[in-house]
Amino acid sequence: MMSTVAESTTSHGSKITIVGIGQVGMACAFSCLTQGVTREIALVDAVENKLRGELLDLQHGSLFMKGPSIQASTDYKVTANSRICVITAGVRQKEGESRLSLVQRNTEILKTIVPQLVKYSPNAILLVVSNPVDVLTYVTWKISGLPKNRVIGSGTSLDSSRFRFLISQRLKVNVKNCHGWIIGEHGDSSVPVWSGVNMAGVRLRELNPKLGTNEDSEDWGELHTKVVNSAYEIIKLKGYTSWAVGLAVANICQSLLGNTHSIQTVSTLVKGQYGIEENVFLSLPCVLGENGITNIVKLTLSEDEQKKMHDSVKNVFAIQKDIQLK
Amino acid sequence: MMSTVAESTTSHGSKITIVGIGQVGMACAFSCLTQGVTREIALVDAVENKLRGELLDLQHGSLFMKGPSIQASTDYKVTANSRICVITAGVRQKEGESRLSLVQRNTEILKTIVPQLVKYSPNAILLVVSNPVDVLTYVTWKISGLPKNRVIGSGTSLDSSRFRFLISQRLKVNVKNCHGWIIGEHGDSSVPVWSGVNMAGVRLRELNPKLGTNEDSEDWGELHTKVVNSAYEIIKLKGYTSWAVGLAVANICQSLLGNTHSIQTVSTLVKGQYGIEENVFLSLPCVLGENGITNIVKLTLSEDEQKKMHDSVKNVFAIQKDIQLK
Amino acid sequence: MMSTVAESTTSHGSKITIVGIGQVGMACAFSCLTQGVTREIALVDAVENKLRGELLDLQHGSLFMKGPSIQASTDYKVTANSRICVITAGVRQKEGESRLSLVQRNTEILKTIVPQLVKYSPNAILLVVSNPVDVLTYVTWKISGLPKNRVIGSGTSLDSSRFRFLISQRLKVNVKNCHGWIIGEHGDSSVPVWSGVNMAGVRLRELNPKLGTNEDSEDWGELHTKVVNSAYEIIKLKGYTSWAVGLAVANICQSLLGNTHSIQTVSTLVKGQYGIEENVFLSLPCVLGENGITNIVKLTLSEDEQKKMHDSVKNVFAIQKDIQLK
Amino acid sequence: MMSTVAESTTSHGSKITIVGIGQVGMACAFSCLTQGVTREIALVDAVENKLRGELLDLQHGSLFMKGPSIQASTDYKVTANSRICVITAGVRQKEGESRLSLVQRNTEILKTIVPQLVKYSPNAILLVVSNPVDVLTYVTWKISGLPKNRVIGSGTSLDSSRFRFLISQRLKVNVKNCHGWIIGEHGDSSVPVWSGVNMAGVRLRELNPKLGTNEDSEDWGELHTKVVNSAYEIIKLKGYTSWAVGLAVANICQSLLGNTHSIQTVSTLVKGQYGIEENVFLSLPCVLGENGITNIVKLTLSEDEQKKMHDSVKNVFAIQKDIQLK
Repeated sequence: MMSTVAESTTSHGSKITIVGIGQVGMACAFSCLTQGVTREIALVDAVENKLRGELLDLQHGSLFMKGPSIQASTDYKVTANSRICVITAGVRQKEGESRLSLVQRNTEILKTIVPQLVKYSPNAILLVVSNPVDVLTYVTWKISGLPKNRVIGSGTSLDSSRFRFLISQRLKVNVKNCHGWIIGEHGDSSVPVWSGVNMAGVRLRELNPKLGTNEDSEDWGELHTKVVNSAYEIIKLKGYTSWAVGLAVANICQSLLGNTHSIQTVSTLVKGQYGIEENVFLSLPCVLGENGITNIVKLTLSEDEQKKMHDSVKNVFAIQKDIQLK
Repeated sequence: MMSTVAESTTSHGSKITIVGIGQVGMACAFSCLTQGVTREIALVDAVENKLRGELLDLQHGSLFMKGPSIQASTDYKVTANSRICVITAGVRQKEGESRLSLVQRNTEILKTIVPQLVKYSPNAILLVVSNPVDVLTYVTWKISGLPKNRVIGSGTSLDSSRFRFLISQRLKVNVKNCHGWIIGEHGDSSVPVWSGVNMAGVRLRELNPKLGTNEDSEDWGELHTKVVNSAYEIIKLKGYTSWAVGLAVANICQSLLGNTHSIQTVSTLVKGQYGIEENVFLSLPCVLGENGITNIVKLTLSEDEQKKMHDSVKNVFAIQKDIQLK
Repeated sequence: MMSTVAESTTSHGSKITIVGIGQVGMACAFSCLTQGVTREIALVDAVENKLRGELLDLQHGSLFMKGPSIQASTDYKVTANSRICVITAGVRQKEGESRLSLVQRNTEILKTIVPQLVKYSPNAILLVVSNPVDVLTYVTWKISGLPKNRVIGSGTSLDSSRFRFLISQRLKVNVKNCHGWIIGEHGDSSVPVWSGVNMAGVRLRELNPKLGTNEDSEDWGELHTKVVNSAYEIIKLKGYTSWAVGLAVANICQSLLGNTHSIQTVSTLVKGQYGIEENVFLSLPCVLGENGITNIVKLTLSEDEQKKMHDSVKNVFAIQKDIQLK
Repeated sequence: MMSTVAESTTSHGSKITIVGIGQVGMACAFSCLTQGVTREIALVDAVENKLRGELLDLQHGSLFMKGPSIQASTDYKVTANSRICVITAGVRQKEGESRLSLVQRNTEILKTIVPQLVKYSPNAILLVVSNPVDVLTYVTWKISGLPKNRVIGSGTSLDSSRFRFLISQRLKVNVKNCHGWIIGEHGDSSVPVWSGVNMAGVRLRELNPKLGTNEDSEDWGELHTKVVNSAYEIIKLKGYTSWAVGLAVANICQSLLGNTHSIQTVSTLVKGQYGIEENVFLSLPCVLGENGITNIVKLTLSEDEQKKMHDSVKNVFAIQKDIQLK
């Protein structure tokens, strides 16, 4: 039906690999495809049947997306020439298991994943989503041997998104006009930066100097509590979280691939920031582009906020220092 | 922080309700939101916990969509003023259960859903996705009392999409340039219209007159076999189908809301087409717009294709005639 | 080729009318169509030939948009059932002509346009783009008899966009992370709100307390000067401005049609704000939705900024009070 | 305000250069930006003032696009590392000028443009839009020394789009469901392929065997006449064509950058097709991807259609053979 003029090339330079096709991995893949973040996706997992089922299910919807190229395999060859590798694989905490034991088990998994990714896509950016994300991003960085700008954790990108949604719900204004960062550790010890919370440039603390404190009669602190409890609550209600984290990851990928210089809170090596001396990864607002993280935004943190950041450092480092990386 | 100029209105005229929030319902909702088909979604289900979990999970991703309005409730009030109501609720076949028994059980469920939807959104279009979709679209039509143009089954929209994907995979050409319809009953007795299969206007049957027949040395018929087996295969591999059907439904919604006059194969009342005399719903290429189905495209079917359509009619009618609608 | 099931409806509820098809009007139309803000556009102008030329040129690109419905006529019938009417028509200042004379001539034009728009689309929102936009928005409000929330001027939406672009260019960060409002009169007397200027929540004035003042060693005030001079400069260089204003208008339309509750600086009736007592229209950050302007954001303006706002009021009122509206 | 983690890279691999910023060039640029085809554009022209005016006007709308990177210069350095270079520059026919003289003058211009583009972007695809497009694509191919797959003329992509729009207007069905190719020379001698014209797979010639002939009582041939006259008519009405050609070019760029393997009618080296022996460029349906044109679709042309193609060859070759390329 056709005469050939030239060979078709197989990769168009915005390929994304997703490792781990649980609910989180698939929500990442589906968000990237439906929002046009990429046209080329590779899925990798150890479970061959499920892998093939998800592949077919996505491919059958090709007509309704932009005619994407989707591949799936248990063999990492399929990931070759990726621009971003998203790691969502990992095990969950067993009953009674120590946090260190959990982290060590996930480290063993990363030891099988990361070298393969780096081998097939030596120029890729690694985006870690598996939990505990901050420690595992550090582990991925160490295993990969990549420069720090190219190893990123999804970190508090989702926490910030939840925070902003809750602000918008209270103010009845579009979420894009409601601003506020959650920084530090993804999870219980995360830090809301109340001083920067604003709606369309109007700082809430200017109108309510007690904003976010214990003495705040409007109890804005409740919003941070809700953010911290979100994952627990949703897991209790529906068994897992998926949509919002998938969208957050797709958004980070878009900033990276599009070289947009957008700012998001992601987990990065924070040594040297706010007097931190350890090699730990925590979330701060970062400028994202093709080269990964190019800049970290310097926030004016209150003493209390700085103290909380240092507490996060201690939390993370306490686990991290005992991990067997080799 | 703000002075009020006027009341905010709550509905912006493209509201979609999704009834049933299993994997299919949620894939529909997520596809509609991420592809910008609507900004306003209401979820309805009987299971309150899961409903709240899905609501929170979607809402937390608001920042990465277009700041959508998402609601969820077990109370149909939440669906008021919808433009489209997508019905994905239903039970599955029990072991040893007859098809009629299954259909009757789902009919009982539709009796609780449909009148509520019509009560709160008397001008909505009802889009049935629950299986067996052709019979249940008929049931919905009867229960609703709505004109036939406003009761639509997702029908073979997904089958056609799968067929076109498989053609594109063989020809190594974008799926949007590969054309071919699957009509008739959604499922085993579906009918591929080989005479119309073409790539960019080049009819495959012109190059291969045996296309799709038993004597076809290139065995294109294999593609239809794959289409028919798709759902079974994916369910075996991953437990359910979700992504592709979600995307197909979002695409139908887009055509309806956008008044695009696009043509898709959906389940419609086929009485009067190809000599069909029964009040059955089957899929044919239909023109979709704000008013639902405005036209049915007249295909030039071969004798064999017409016979298969009439077989589909018999299949469907055999079940349908014994359903207790009251 | 088709059998009819039901009549096709002609309007899908997001119709936009553009009055005046000069470079600005066409950039508005093209931005709305290519960005998917609407699928239905009506163009109105007095010059029949150009109108038909633009219609054909847009229609010929239908395949590459979403199959839009585009109409054009010198007869306002074509605008029926619009949700938004964008007014870009108007004459330019003659040499030696007084500003009042110019405004009066444009008022005469609005007297022929506005009643026709209101007649055919009594529920539409009127969006005035013609200059001087603040006075002409007031005139349109008076002629139309519509409530104040449904008469909006594009105002300083473009000035704010220019300001934010210049900030982003200096900071080398994505424009969406650079925030700052220009309020007041669109044009020479516009007011930059330095206190709210921030990058990702980091207030620039916190780092540089002299920001935007005469004593600012980094001379950020230069950015506002550039904003004020932009229109003049571009008109000198290419003869007119078009792309940015078209995009700004499309963005406002998207917020209105999508009921997004987004905040933008648009021209609105400011009586009652900051002690203003006159019935003048000036730009302030407003919440936009289906019902037009629902809220005005209260900024914490410095004394100097408030004084400048009052100067803007005087400027505008000086012209406005002598206009013959009947 | 920020600490540096790594250098920002300047190019993200989907850069498009537009040479010539008249109405056509700017419509190409604006279509590419508003439709998200690329985030990085370079404009080149000889007229410095207009260049700067267009640059500023586009940049001021950055907020409403995806924060694109836009550059403009009279120096070709600005085009470095482009993936596609769109050439819209050229002079128009003087009164009484022979066609050869016009082509020769445009050839002289291409001699100054093409080597510069190839020097700074040796791997780019060249997309010629200047008229007469078929001859000038040949000229560009010869001057550039690039392989034939990487030199493409916009050809009849716009003619096909116009044809499909006119079909859709007659059938009252979405343009994406109306199919038909115009091939051969862009302009008066273009060839409509009636045998392939179809709506949703229903061949019109099957229903009306005289379709497109002189004996066609429904006079579908009128549609091709309208296509041929379109440019003349629009130029008479509004002075130039811009929107549709801009959209057609953006669509080709999207297929190339996205490696979509989509099929479009573009001007390509047709030697070897349909017995053509000359090195001429004419439009045929081609598969487009990252590597430019990878395949040419073989249509089943009638004798009459083949004859018209050969007439096109003669037309184009008659001019082409006398051009001074050195």
